[in-house]
Amino acid sequence: MGEVVAGASMSLDGFVAGPGESGFDLLFGWMGGGTEEVQTAQSGRVLRMSPASAKVLRAQLESTGAILVGRRLFDLTSGWGGMHPFGGPVVVLTHQPPAGWEDSPFTFVTEGIEAAVERAKELADGRDVGVNAGEMARQCLQAGLLDAVRIDLVPVLLGGGVPLFGEFGLDPVRLGTPDVTVSEGVTHLRYPI
Amino acid sequence: MGEVVAGASMSLDGFVAGPGESGFDLLFGWMGGGTEEVQTAQSGRVLRMSPASAKVLRAQLESTGAILVGRRLFDLTSGWGGMHPFGGPVVVLTHQPPAGWEDSPFTFVTEGIEAAVERAKELADGRDVGVNAGEMARQCLQAGLLDAVRIDLVPVLLGGGVPLFGEFGLDPVRLGTPDVTVSEGVTHLRYPI
Repeated sequence: MGEVVAGASMSLDGFVAGPGESGFDLLFGWMGGGTEEVQTAQSGRVLRMSPASAKVLRAQLESTGAILVGRRLFDLTSGWGGMHPFGGPVVVLTHQPPAGWEDSPFTFVTEGIEAAVERAKELADGRDVGVNAGEMARQCLQAGLLDAVRIDLVPVLLGGGVPLFGEFGLDPVRLGTPDVTVSEGVTHLRYPI
Repeated sequence: MGEVVAGASMSLDGFVAGPGESGFDLLFGWMGGGTEEVQTAQSGRVLRMSPASAKVLRAQLESTGAILVGRRLFDLTSGWGGMHPFGGPVVVLTHQPPAGWEDSPFTFVTEGIEAAVERAKELADGRDVGVNAGEMARQCLQAGLLDAVRIDLVPVLLGGGVPLFGEFGLDPVRLGTPDVTVSEGVTHLRYPI
């Protein structure tokens, strides 16, 4: 059975975006500067990273069967131009589904986080469900639906911005010992919950 | 020449203390539960941790010649009962030196962060100066005085509290590739600036 895995590129001081939606060039720089090419599902878009990071990312793409995102990210990226880089089914939690996306990899769920995770699990067909950090990951954490947290820890201090989970108003959540891969410009960590 | 190194035990979501000064049992749990004993300079106080963590901590104690703390931490710990666990000289940045500490390992500096670092470097005699995270580390970062950041990353989400450096109001600060030691209940990271 697949797991529900929240993931993000995060600065060492705990931010997944800098002040005023800045810092993405720094947070995702490790996907752009290396020697190893990783093909995405978007035509013509290739990522370039270190061999160690490519190994981690490829394993992650193979183990992921569906992705869960919020409406904000869907709108911000204009639905990734019709195709998420990951290439598989994407569940979008929203209050009101947009028109014109009926025949697409995107499935819109309006009944809340538990229904969205349930639908993503069906679509993942035994593989993992990837959840973007921020609001969606926080809702999954609060609902007790997360199995693991994957952090790409980037050696930069942003000094402010959007925190990984925000203030989730729960008792502290203990995680297990992480799998760690040290790469150029990023340390990949995967923690079981 | 020694380096100026800010260090802290930090939760995965970027806090060096939980809400309302909570969470220290979780943040410093890795110093209490293992099989390897590390003697401190405080009589009778022994830390117990994993062999991997003990190796990191012993190397750190050997390379550190002086410690720099703020008055808040000094007061909070009542001057560590007269002896910091580290055992060497401790510089305290304060507006007004307390009475009765003339013949002690503590040196009080009132002339600001640059003077405090300067004095700590003299006392460290070629070895590193350790700076506690939070206010002191932020002041060192802002003044361009930090050479490295050492993070003991603890697999817990605190959901709020005191951030590592706070909002430091600078452009993003890029760090180098870290030395990483994965241990039980903690991942030790040391980044050059």
